Amino acid sequence: MKRLLITGAGGGIGREARGALAPLAETLRLSDVVDLGEAGANEEIVTADIGDAAAVEALMEGVDGVVHLGGVSVEDAIDPILHANVRGVYNLYEAARMHGRRPRIIFASSNHAIGFHPVTERLDADSVPIADSLYGASKVWGEQIALIYWHKFGIESLRIRIGSVFPEPKDRRMLSTWMSYRDFFSLIRRAFMVPALGCPVVYGASDNSAGWWDNSKTGFLGWRPQDSADRWRAEKEDGAPPGDGEDPAVKYQGGGFAKAGIMRTPRTGGG
Amino acid sequence: MKRLLITGAGGGIGREARGALAPLAETLRLSDVVDLGEAGANEEIVTADIGDAAAVEALMEGVDGVVHLGGVSVEDAIDPILHANVRGVYNLYEAARMHGRRPRIIFASSNHAIGFHPVTERLDADSVPIADSLYGASKVWGEQIALIYWHKFGIESLRIRIGSVFPEPKDRRMLSTWMSYRDFFSLIRRAFMVPALGCPVVYGASDNSAGWWDNSKTGFLGWRPQDSADRWRAEKEDGAPPGDGEDPAVKYQGGGFAKAGIMRTPRTGGG
Amino acid sequence: MKRLLITGAGGGIGREARGALAPLAETLRLSDVVDLGEAGANEEIVTADIGDAAAVEALMEGVDGVVHLGGVSVEDAIDPILHANVRGVYNLYEAARMHGRRPRIIFASSNHAIGFHPVTERLDADSVPIADSLYGASKVWGEQIALIYWHKFGIESLRIRIGSVFPEPKDRRMLSTWMSYRDFFSLIRRAFMVPALGCPVVYGASDNSAGWWDNSKTGFLGWRPQDSADRWRAEKEDGAPPGDGEDPAVKYQGGGFAKAGIMRTPRTGGG
Amino acid sequence: MKRLLITGAGGGIGREARGALAPLAETLRLSDVVDLGEAGANEEIVTADIGDAAAVEALMEGVDGVVHLGGVSVEDAIDPILHANVRGVYNLYEAARMHGRRPRIIFASSNHAIGFHPVTERLDADSVPIADSLYGASKVWGEQIALIYWHKFGIESLRIRIGSVFPEPKDRRMLSTWMSYRDFFSLIRRAFMVPALGCPVVYGASDNSAGWWDNSKTGFLGWRPQDSADRWRAEKEDGAPPGDGEDPAVKYQGGGFAKAGIMRTPRTGGG
Amino acid sequence: MKRLLITGAGGGIGREARGALAPLAETLRLSDVVDLGEAGANEEIVTADIGDAAAVEALMEGVDGVVHLGGVSVEDAIDPILHANVRGVYNLYEAARMHGRRPRIIFASSNHAIGFHPVTERLDADSVPIADSLYGASKVWGEQIALIYWHKFGIESLRIRIGSVFPEPKDRRMLSTWMSYRDFFSLIRRAFMVPALGCPVVYGASDNSAGWWDNSKTGFLGWRPQDSADRWRAEKEDGAPPGDGEDPAVKYQGGGFAKAGIMRTPRTGGG
Amino acid sequence: MKRLLITGAGGGIGREARGALAPLAETLRLSDVVDLGEAGANEEIVTADIGDAAAVEALMEGVDGVVHLGGVSVEDAIDPILHANVRGVYNLYEAARMHGRRPRIIFASSNHAIGFHPVTERLDADSVPIADSLYGASKVWGEQIALIYWHKFGIESLRIRIGSVFPEPKDRRMLSTWMSYRDFFSLIRRAFMVPALGCPVVYGASDNSAGWWDNSKTGFLGWRPQDSADRWRAEKEDGAPPGDGEDPAVKYQGGGFAKAGIMRTPRTGGG
Repeated sequence: MKRLLITGAGGGIGREARGALAPLAETLRLSDVVDLGEAGANEEIVTADIGDAAAVEALMEGVDGVVHLGGVSVEDAIDPILHANVRGVYNLYEAARMHGRRPRIIFASSNHAIGFHPVTERLDADSVPIADSLYGASKVWGEQIALIYWHKFGIESLRIRIGSVFPEPKDRRMLSTWMSYRDFFSLIRRAFMVPALGCPVVYGASDNSAGWWDNSKTGFLGWRPQDSADRWRAEKEDGAPPGDGEDPAVKYQGGGFAKAGIMRTPRTGGG
Repeated sequence: MKRLLITGAGGGIGREARGALAPLAETLRLSDVVDLGEAGANEEIVTADIGDAAAVEALMEGVDGVVHLGGVSVEDAIDPILHANVRGVYNLYEAARMHGRRPRIIFASSNHAIGFHPVTERLDADSVPIADSLYGASKVWGEQIALIYWHKFGIESLRIRIGSVFPEPKDRRMLSTWMSYRDFFSLIRRAFMVPALGCPVVYGASDNSAGWWDNSKTGFLGWRPQDSADRWRAEKEDGAPPGDGEDPAVKYQGGGFAKAGIMRTPRTGGG
Repeated sequence: MKRLLITGAGGGIGREARGALAPLAETLRLSDVVDLGEAGANEEIVTADIGDAAAVEALMEGVDGVVHLGGVSVEDAIDPILHANVRGVYNLYEAARMHGRRPRIIFASSNHAIGFHPVTERLDADSVPIADSLYGASKVWGEQIALIYWHKFGIESLRIRIGSVFPEPKDRRMLSTWMSYRDFFSLIRRAFMVPALGCPVVYGASDNSAGWWDNSKTGFLGWRPQDSADRWRAEKEDGAPPGDGEDPAVKYQGGGFAKAGIMRTPRTGGG
Repeated sequence: MKRLLITGAGGGIGREARGALAPLAETLRLSDVVDLGEAGANEEIVTADIGDAAAVEALMEGVDGVVHLGGVSVEDAIDPILHANVRGVYNLYEAARMHGRRPRIIFASSNHAIGFHPVTERLDADSVPIADSLYGASKVWGEQIALIYWHKFGIESLRIRIGSVFPEPKDRRMLSTWMSYRDFFSLIRRAFMVPALGCPVVYGASDNSAGWWDNSKTGFLGWRPQDSADRWRAEKEDGAPPGDGEDPAVKYQGGGFAKAGIMRTPRTGGG
Repeated sequence: MKRLLITGAGGGIGREARGALAPLAETLRLSDVVDLGEAGANEEIVTADIGDAAAVEALMEGVDGVVHLGGVSVEDAIDPILHANVRGVYNLYEAARMHGRRPRIIFASSNHAIGFHPVTERLDADSVPIADSLYGASKVWGEQIALIYWHKFGIESLRIRIGSVFPEPKDRRMLSTWMSYRDFFSLIRRAFMVPALGCPVVYGASDNSAGWWDNSKTGFLGWRPQDSADRWRAEKEDGAPPGDGEDPAVKYQGGGFAKAGIMRTPRTGGG
Repeated sequence: MKRLLITGAGGGIGREARGALAPLAETLRLSDVVDLGEAGANEEIVTADIGDAAAVEALMEGVDGVVHLGGVSVEDAIDPILHANVRGVYNLYEAARMHGRRPRIIFASSNHAIGFHPVTERLDADSVPIADSLYGASKVWGEQIALIYWHKFGIESLRIRIGSVFPEPKDRRMLSTWMSYRDFFSLIRRAFMVPALGCPVVYGASDNSAGWWDNSKTGFLGWRPQDSADRWRAEKEDGAPPGDGEDPAVKYQGGGFAKAGIMRTPRTGGG
């Protein structure tokens, strides 16, 4: 690719993406609402609010690939969710249609789009969404926008229902949901490599023994995770009681998001 | 019920609902952004914008059942969709949680939430949503909000993916999607009658021979449509060529919505 | 048939069977632990305890069809359940193998074999059993005995998961589960008529709008119920509140059986 | 339509089709290898061997709809099957591509394409073919040719797996498979009426209680059979023993075809 | 755990369990009808007949985990099956409810609960039971008792449909069914480790290439077998003819149990 | 086995088979229409046209296993396809019935029997055939002939839908479809080893990350591919643009066969 746009480039995943995805394009265009520092070699830096349509249109100029990590990435009150995620993803696809070069788009959806499925259930790409939060509902919205632009305008997307992308699993739940940076970026690379992509759903998790998600329907991507949360299993389980299966944070795949109430006051900041 | 709230009471279906649903409650509270005229016996009239949280909270006071027909009911630009449908449905459920009497809620979703499934495919309650428009995506959002309030707070909803509720079918497509007023209101009555409702999806169509939707998974509602579009079949088909199966308006269940582009300028008005 | 054996002929259904099934065979052999009175024309009366192997062997002599209604028909303590239902059904099949004329057997299983499925779920012949009581577990056992004798010895059975066979629905739940005598006996007749029976499961309910069970996989029987609980719907629903969906008696298909605890003391009597 | 071609117009169904399908087109072109007598009003008569490519090309000139009933219609030796059915259906589609007006084609497939499914199994449009005879295998071939021309050239077909089209059911098996002429022709009419047809499978049977086939996946056709074999049920079942479930003619949907061996000598005649 | 009860501790698997499961609890309570010898460190030994309710109640006192291996473990006549397996498993769960500390229970079910599925069929956790013997039917009964106590009283169980747990595969069939001790005990450990267990079915087999069972629906357990029968494949297959596919011992997953008749005389001994 | 027949022994796979399958039988009988050179030790060489019934009958004399690689192996005009593949496979099975020793038959079917499924879809043994060519349709025919001889005469077959068997992948598509010789021959060995074979479908591909096919339903074969096209992935993908997803050669599993038209003139030669 000539130019790959990464939104949300200042976030935890975004900072790693800067290095990991550089080989995919001649130029990386990095964007966030926060300051991203100096542009490196083959980088362009653009500060933009994803909820601002005009800014997003400018951002998309001449782009032939997008990794959309921007927006609010945790539960929040309705206002920031609507601004950065609901309106934001619309802005992104509309800009791609008008100003991009029919780019493939990686949409960072979330396990919270399906977070009210119980942990004892196995999901695949045809499982119906059951959001566990306003954040989760905004991801379902984003998955739908991706589908609309695929069917109406032929823009291909990979919709990744991301588990937990961190350097290592932080708690017992992540023994099921954890995804290494390496596995995340290799998945993104596959989406730009396959001859035909379409608009599939894939679950973003490493090869964890206790995983909940079956990616076989998206096997044509040719992606196989290389890492596993199992390495931390003994450490996370030792001495920990098995838990109360009726606690929503234990019972549902969304964990704490499933248990939480509705936030009436926005966090400061957002995506 | 003591008090049943009907939003969007000034729309086409809403006006019919006023009479048809009166037997369900001691008092009907009717609401719309447009003027609804004089309140009749056992009626309360409240003018309110569903996108205005405070107004919706007031609206919900003392309500023990809701038929939510309000909001934008056709494709529109992003601003009215976000205001009346995305924010609107959130306002409604949040008000129900805070000010209602744990009301059952009938959510008027739409076939446009699944409009990019082809007409040659049969759908049921577990079919994944594939919206055909911003309007359709807002209905998927609303279906998710209903699920969130069911799982978090035990508020039950019936999510009706409405076909085409009109006095009679207007065109060939409605031979598959048409729903009579009688069938629509009898379905709503069932949702208030069943001992346990949960939060199921049901497709809103009469007993049309050429229908696309299978409601057997929601059979526990005990609803059987009494009318059929077949009565108008000869009239709508005679002399009409079978059509071009590659035309999106013919190929997809969403019909014209599937074919249309994205509206960049709002219609005047909206829901 | 020459000789049709009806066990449990003194029970509610059994007494009706005496008349309704007479046309199926030259001789009806009627049996129960309780006194059945005088034998009518073309009847033979045998008092026998289904839990007594020798008695059952004698009962089966020369039989070429069985309608097995005998045993305990409600929840009870473990002893009567083991005696009349667990041991009883074994006695019956073993006797059929040794002393019958390879009879087809109608096994009166029960909805309580699947009673812990929620009412919002639709079941069919491949739904896994989830018994709601010791009684229900004994019916699952009986269904397995039927399968064993089919696979090992070619004895065909119809396993009917009976809903509620009564003159009319008694309560709201029976709007879903009720089965008329007429429909029950017409189903039994079909089992003796079809060229090949095998060992299928069928749910025993009339054509109730609010039914939970899909018999299409057993469509080859050619059975169509003629009656419906709907006639009593208004009467059973009027004025009744919709109920608490978390109450096990409302939430699960088994109704009161699902809610009840374990009986440690036998009822007097039994089947 | 201007011109509808009916092949096999001299066979049992073909003779009925001549009258029943006349309203569908300005001109009926009737064809068979046998003499069809005088052309009536709005009829053209062409004698042609479906296995003769040149003859079939001539036959297709100017045609905008085809009902393909021609070919061998019972089990036969390999030579006539290859000539009239395997080569014949290829000739037909190739001629339609080269000389027709992109006609919709009704392909008379057969239940013998799935005849080795047991009678206790319910089939639908996604059931895999299991032919019961060379005849059945030739119908599977024909179904594949229809799919190839749909995917490569956009020629739409209805693939009807016909049960038993006769004036009335002739034996017990036909209580499951019988299809009235009226139902058969109304199905054909639907295939020419629907806006988008594609290339679906539908099972050709009337509304028989003991039917084996579920057409719900092809519900978009809007076809509902009006007749039923049930009217003859008592007559066909009375006094008949239920049969030996291990006899292939009883056990499998294909009946006698499933039981028969391989014919090494052709019948005289054929289609 | 403080105290883990192992029933059937004198059997083949039970003797191995004594060492392998010791790390799971401060105290192992070991029980069987046969003499178990001296108690080791951190062991308690109780001789008890599982069919004796009072003895089982005493056994359960203060237990917070159960591995139920007790009862008859092969086909037998109806009396020992009813005593040790049907009544036995009821005794166990009833005692757990009354006297235990809401223990998780590992129920040793068996492949003979599904033994009349053919070897060419792949099963998963939703496959319906088809017992191949009285023994198999008693395991289906036990699986139902586990479900009843889960739904009524919240007692969690793992229902393991055990293949063949031996030091190594003994015959060709075990190339599909074999499970190493190591894999069996690691599965048990997982059941005590997962935060929420519920009452799932899992098939007990090592990672055998020729296995019949798919455990993906129970993937949340995080169990991956480490051993494989493949190591013995050449040895078991060499020189052995492929076998007669119509022989029930070859055709069905239950092997010899599927082929055997009904035992009318008890083996001496039993569980 | 005493005598294993390999047809098409002069083709690319056939030449490799000569060495690889020698250990399976005392004598290999090798056959083709082309000259196969000198017979080696334990070999018999027979030149025969598979479309010639008498020649095939002679070929089958005394055979107790068949690997049928013969016939046309690429798209061709209707005449050679009918001769070598449609008639050819009939000749083979009919000869096996009449002159063989109830041999197991490996039928080399092809991915072109399912080639019009899109690459984004995952197939398994129950996926319906959708041929992409006349060649593909002839393979569907052959799969049906295998089923007929299994159901009527108990002749077991393995129907392998072969991907691309070559020394190494030749292009990007083969990253999904490639099968090594080693994996192909180990699969054939499994078919002769399993106790019961029946007539299953298996997809012939190595363990390619980007594969489209799920063989778990045929897991009882105990076959696990050892090779993978992944070794050549970088080489085949580097510098290659992802391709146009609407190009039939990219969109469908059949690749170039799906894109090609119908050949009206035979290639010289054929199988």
